[in-house]
Amino acid sequence: MYSIDLNSDLGESFGAYKIGRDEDVIPMVSSANVACGFHAGDPTVMAKTALLCKENGIAIGAHPGFNDLVGFGRRNMNVAPSDIKNMIIYQVGALDAFCKATGIKMQHVKPHGALYNMAAKDAALAAAICEGIYEYNPELILMGLANSEMINQAKKLGLPYAAEVFADRAYEDDGTLVARTKPGAMIKDEAEAVSRVVGMIKKHSVTSINGNEIEICPDSVCVHGDSEKALIFVEKIRDTLQKEGIAIKPVYEIISER
Amino acid sequence: MYSIDLNSDLGESFGAYKIGRDEDVIPMVSSANVACGFHAGDPTVMAKTALLCKENGIAIGAHPGFNDLVGFGRRNMNVAPSDIKNMIIYQVGALDAFCKATGIKMQHVKPHGALYNMAAKDAALAAAICEGIYEYNPELILMGLANSEMINQAKKLGLPYAAEVFADRAYEDDGTLVARTKPGAMIKDEAEAVSRVVGMIKKHSVTSINGNEIEICPDSVCVHGDSEKALIFVEKIRDTLQKEGIAIKPVYEIISER
Amino acid sequence: MYSIDLNSDLGESFGAYKIGRDEDVIPMVSSANVACGFHAGDPTVMAKTALLCKENGIAIGAHPGFNDLVGFGRRNMNVAPSDIKNMIIYQVGALDAFCKATGIKMQHVKPHGALYNMAAKDAALAAAICEGIYEYNPELILMGLANSEMINQAKKLGLPYAAEVFADRAYEDDGTLVARTKPGAMIKDEAEAVSRVVGMIKKHSVTSINGNEIEICPDSVCVHGDSEKALIFVEKIRDTLQKEGIAIKPVYEIISER
Amino acid sequence: MYSIDLNSDLGESFGAYKIGRDEDVIPMVSSANVACGFHAGDPTVMAKTALLCKENGIAIGAHPGFNDLVGFGRRNMNVAPSDIKNMIIYQVGALDAFCKATGIKMQHVKPHGALYNMAAKDAALAAAICEGIYEYNPELILMGLANSEMINQAKKLGLPYAAEVFADRAYEDDGTLVARTKPGAMIKDEAEAVSRVVGMIKKHSVTSINGNEIEICPDSVCVHGDSEKALIFVEKIRDTLQKEGIAIKPVYEIISER
Repeated sequence: MYSIDLNSDLGESFGAYKIGRDEDVIPMVSSANVACGFHAGDPTVMAKTALLCKENGIAIGAHPGFNDLVGFGRRNMNVAPSDIKNMIIYQVGALDAFCKATGIKMQHVKPHGALYNMAAKDAALAAAICEGIYEYNPELILMGLANSEMINQAKKLGLPYAAEVFADRAYEDDGTLVARTKPGAMIKDEAEAVSRVVGMIKKHSVTSINGNEIEICPDSVCVHGDSEKALIFVEKIRDTLQKEGIAIKPVYEIISER
Repeated sequence: MYSIDLNSDLGESFGAYKIGRDEDVIPMVSSANVACGFHAGDPTVMAKTALLCKENGIAIGAHPGFNDLVGFGRRNMNVAPSDIKNMIIYQVGALDAFCKATGIKMQHVKPHGALYNMAAKDAALAAAICEGIYEYNPELILMGLANSEMINQAKKLGLPYAAEVFADRAYEDDGTLVARTKPGAMIKDEAEAVSRVVGMIKKHSVTSINGNEIEICPDSVCVHGDSEKALIFVEKIRDTLQKEGIAIKPVYEIISER
Repeated sequence: MYSIDLNSDLGESFGAYKIGRDEDVIPMVSSANVACGFHAGDPTVMAKTALLCKENGIAIGAHPGFNDLVGFGRRNMNVAPSDIKNMIIYQVGALDAFCKATGIKMQHVKPHGALYNMAAKDAALAAAICEGIYEYNPELILMGLANSEMINQAKKLGLPYAAEVFADRAYEDDGTLVARTKPGAMIKDEAEAVSRVVGMIKKHSVTSINGNEIEICPDSVCVHGDSEKALIFVEKIRDTLQKEGIAIKPVYEIISER
Repeated sequence: MYSIDLNSDLGESFGAYKIGRDEDVIPMVSSANVACGFHAGDPTVMAKTALLCKENGIAIGAHPGFNDLVGFGRRNMNVAPSDIKNMIIYQVGALDAFCKATGIKMQHVKPHGALYNMAAKDAALAAAICEGIYEYNPELILMGLANSEMINQAKKLGLPYAAEVFADRAYEDDGTLVARTKPGAMIKDEAEAVSRVVGMIKKHSVTSINGNEIEICPDSVCVHGDSEKALIFVEKIRDTLQKEGIAIKPVYEIISER
């Protein structure tokens, strides 16, 4: 029996500003990555999002990012690893407070945006993130890019980890993502994107941008809920997974079956 | 045997900005109120302050404030009680994360500045603060102004509470603080200030601004560590308490003996 | 010949967060109040909004607010008048920089949200705002609530002023707005709202909530562009004004004809 | 007759947080670089600093930085050049507002910290900064690292520029600064540091880290006022300059004599 987690970035609204269609996407995924107030989100948004997760029975995780609201955490910043570690502890603790107040248990931590991308390649940064999570709660799952430094460092530290894959991105021969600036980086054909995901789950393999079959072991697939088009794509993925006999489960179940 | 807690506001530095002489005052107090990043403090300052508390064996508490760094949380803000509650949960959880990472247990929550002063008089605000703490962890102690709405609401909710008194402030007949704008609001004579504290602890009484003896039951006395003068005053209080046979203990011990 | 200014709050987006349909409402108004980065707006949004104003030939003004992004500047804050004055100078200068870079001239300053409401009643606050504007550029027009302290203080200082009225709000006998918490504060019937505006312009009079005819001399009417419904209402007002022979002009023209 | 400008970074306090001894250093320099509220400074600090400059008759300039208060603008950030340009216009306009309100004229713009260092090497970033200044006011002087991309781009655009040198830093053969991470990057001997500055001014030359005489044409020397030691060094430089017959003048005079 095959299974996979579907995760989505949620709780990204801020004060009077609304981003994302959380009410629509939450019932369709199994894990929510909730912004923690640095790059997006605020305390009241976090409280509402934790409640939405509880009501829909999906797993919740922290989605910490750089302290850069105007850049939505998408701009690389040169932050010392020791500060990164504290930034992670702070944001994870803040979201966990809402989990506790809501009566649910936090499942995972997935770094956001530029922090996610930088840590995928930078061992010191990845280690700082994993240490912050580990010191706070060594049972939390680090969700990071499959085949990345984040996964390496989590393994090294003994922190539970989950490998994330992207339906709409091409992969290099070494299993890392093709940079968005390169031609062919995006998989634009939706049917192809879904079919690639099915292959990753069932065969632990995907065709690289160079045409080679490479190994990839996905625990979770990232989907988006910020537009009508994105929501339709999530439905498409869900339908296909069902037809293919692939169950959708929170990532802690996925990795416990690993 | 008499006893009292000495508390001080700490961890108020921010990035390159330094406020307070934390290293000097921490060894002299029994409870630290640590800023949580909204009106002061940042993740790295919080990590360092939690470690300092651990090393000196003093109790730690959260010191949440309004989201107003430039005003240092000292300016009244008209925030909805539901947002106040979430603001409390967020900041308390953030500091608790550093307590966990450091291997210490959080003892209390003391609101800061304008939030403290507003909640002393505003029942809805005080209730929102107490509910936030209670939903996060009903064993945390609310530290609030003696005889204030904060203490009332904690009692009502069943949340542990500690009554805080000020050595350098005059009191009204009803046990509330004389507004700073009134003449006589500040006790400028240091010997008198210390002697008033001793009276509060031993006789549960103090002379009001109108010359009446009023009841006051202090669990903790607030002291400051932001200047040489303040530090000398703390030493003076400590010496007098010792001579008077009054033990200095963290506030959780004080209220357990109540 | 009758005339009036239509003003709207614009440039309220922030980073990845979008608020308002600026492209749709700008062609329908004569004056834009542009957020300055404290309660809404960011440098790039300000640059774009200044350019939109230039391309559509409408007048531009600064819309300074409290330093409270998460509260969108709608929460009362107890800020010292001297700090208010500097906060105004800062924000007005920042927007004026984009006017200069775009090759247009700043027309007016309209305080936002809680700052607007507080200054309507608080003489010291209103004076601080007017002084900030005056010291920066004494030719800028203060746009404030008709019959309010803001208008009083501008007159006292010799600062040009424009009286703003609201189509959808009821008025007290003294010409001030009925508080939103009172029944009847909002004029819900759109036809009545438009008809009241026409009366204000042509007869300098409106029926108060107590049924009395009171004097009101409007220079500008506030309209909104944040929803489809709001945009339709602006069209309705524009149509009626045209039928009634009332020209729509930037507020500097309106007050020069006063 | 020789002459040089002495500049210092000022107005870096923020709310309750104080950095720098502005009152002491302002009388000793000829040009002040004033923080604009992004990496340091706030509106009230800016107003006070502008007044101090006026009272001491020294020239004032804007010191814009990254929007990173907790990092004091010292952390590299990957910001799009178009956003950099708008960030510059915003901050320069904000400070200029206080110059106008104070009745003084802004002389120059010197980028701060990580922005300064990145723009010294990155042509697109340097061009964006220069364009922002130029579009706001083409008469403002760009103050940048001698022999850097900032100076190149200012020349290309026709923006007035001033080359800044550092007394305590070693130089590479190409006239750029030796990276702080390299041994020998800092000139620790104060007498040697002062003597190097005199050589730069009189002979337009300095010995590189490799022992070669290289060309350098300084318009301004950066000095610090954040500690007792720094202030003593400024006095030392001033004394030596006087003995050597080198006049200290604001940088607009220096470059007009070029």
